[in-house]
Amino acid sequence: MKEKVKGKLMIIGGAEDKEGDCTILKKLVDLAGRRDANIVIMTVASEYPERIGNEYMTVASEYPERIGNEYTHIFKRLGVENINAIHIHSRQDANYDEFVGRIEKASCIFFTGGDQLRITSLLGGTKAEEILKKAYYRGVVIAGTSAGASVMSETMITSGNDDDAPKKCTLKMAPGLGLLKDVVVDQHFAQRGRIGRLLTAIAQNPHMLGLGLDEDTAVIINNDAVFEIIGSHAVTILDGKNLDFTNVSELKPNEILSITNVTMHVLSSGFKYDIKSRRPVIGR
Amino acid sequence: MKEKVKGKLMIIGGAEDKEGDCTILKKLVDLAGRRDANIVIMTVASEYPERIGNEYMTVASEYPERIGNEYTHIFKRLGVENINAIHIHSRQDANYDEFVGRIEKASCIFFTGGDQLRITSLLGGTKAEEILKKAYYRGVVIAGTSAGASVMSETMITSGNDDDAPKKCTLKMAPGLGLLKDVVVDQHFAQRGRIGRLLTAIAQNPHMLGLGLDEDTAVIINNDAVFEIIGSHAVTILDGKNLDFTNVSELKPNEILSITNVTMHVLSSGFKYDIKSRRPVIGR
Repeated sequence: MKEKVKGKLMIIGGAEDKEGDCTILKKLVDLAGRRDANIVIMTVASEYPERIGNEYMTVASEYPERIGNEYTHIFKRLGVENINAIHIHSRQDANYDEFVGRIEKASCIFFTGGDQLRITSLLGGTKAEEILKKAYYRGVVIAGTSAGASVMSETMITSGNDDDAPKKCTLKMAPGLGLLKDVVVDQHFAQRGRIGRLLTAIAQNPHMLGLGLDEDTAVIINNDAVFEIIGSHAVTILDGKNLDFTNVSELKPNEILSITNVTMHVLSSGFKYDIKSRRPVIGR
Repeated sequence: MKEKVKGKLMIIGGAEDKEGDCTILKKLVDLAGRRDANIVIMTVASEYPERIGNEYMTVASEYPERIGNEYTHIFKRLGVENINAIHIHSRQDANYDEFVGRIEKASCIFFTGGDQLRITSLLGGTKAEEILKKAYYRGVVIAGTSAGASVMSETMITSGNDDDAPKKCTLKMAPGLGLLKDVVVDQHFAQRGRIGRLLTAIAQNPHMLGLGLDEDTAVIINNDAVFEIIGSHAVTILDGKNLDFTNVSELKPNEILSITNVTMHVLSSGFKYDIKSRRPVIGR
């Protein structure tokens, strides 16, 4: 990106607390401006029931609307007055002036969970995406949970096995929104046993830092590329810069990845990490 | 140990293939001497149904016997003639001359899965254990799968959360059989998402190497402390020698571990690792 970014990212590993202390969502409200906040909730990752054969299921689910309502209630409870849930179901929706206008006015844009490919395939190359990125550069807070976390990076994980040894054949990646450079994000990390898939991702390009976010855990990334961890679990950082061997390029389907000399950090709430220097900041 | 060890260890991450190629069990038969092998199967980790309230369940399960029969059939199929399944249910059994004699004559002693604390609480300090260790020093192959893998180390993991962020409060350790020095073994590793508990173990004493064995995957450890990996998944090695920070000693219950600068290797079949120098041996 050419211009200096002024926005912040809040990337959440999914399943953030919505009923107790709401540590993460409360912090998001703080970042967004509290009573002056204007939060846009983007439910684009969630979808209506799938078409089965040639028929759509008859009972229309209100899934995106239900998610939108849930977060609207939480943010209201946390003192925000100006909240808009935007439900984008098509690329036409993502070019719709009314929606684009609301995104433009937001102080915080929050992506809910679902399927990360829905976010990028519906938003990529539209006015909504263009305005969102401009907002981020200008100083707006962009947040996302679960699928909404994965899309933050330039290349994102779209699928891969949980609780499995690292395998190239089962990992699928795609271009993300690209708000976060040099990092690949994974979510529901410890809870779904996803270290194998994140290792495979960084083996493919050790320039990338692997960021595995546990549930109810988030990182807040400032424009100086230092992030801070909040929430009840941990963030796992996989750094491949000292890799001295991987067989990732020669693997046959179903063969298991080998990789040596990965540097790993696990950090919990209050700790910081500097993406540029690739070092934990231990003196808080 | 004072004398130079001449035996080998085969440590298996559980769920090894018993019907297909049987790569791991076939290799064990090779190490044990093929047609000349004398394999003792130790089912001590498995148990009869637990007492519920003040009553034992009425139908006696033949669980240890069933496991013993299963492995007896497999080893027979793989060409071994001399196979003894020994079912130790008490410390008295573990001092029983008949059993001790059979262990003494074995070329390979194989621990099946179950509860690692049954193995150590029933064998620890008995004649069976003494004879087993002498056999190992003399050149016998000691093998174990799942719980039978965990007991190999001096300190073993007895319980801890699967698919969870590292937490000290949920990890329990106990003294193992101590055949393998300077290492903590975990099993069913990727399949049960156990990196959190193994990280906590090495954070507590970074002198220890963490060895996470996936299912249907094994290491063969020679007396020069170089091990080789076989099987269909991977082995994860966590090396804490360069740790520069952990809060493990200050953690409150339920707090999440932080740990920085862990070196991680993931190695698949055919790769070797040198425990003494703590380096993967990449030129095979």
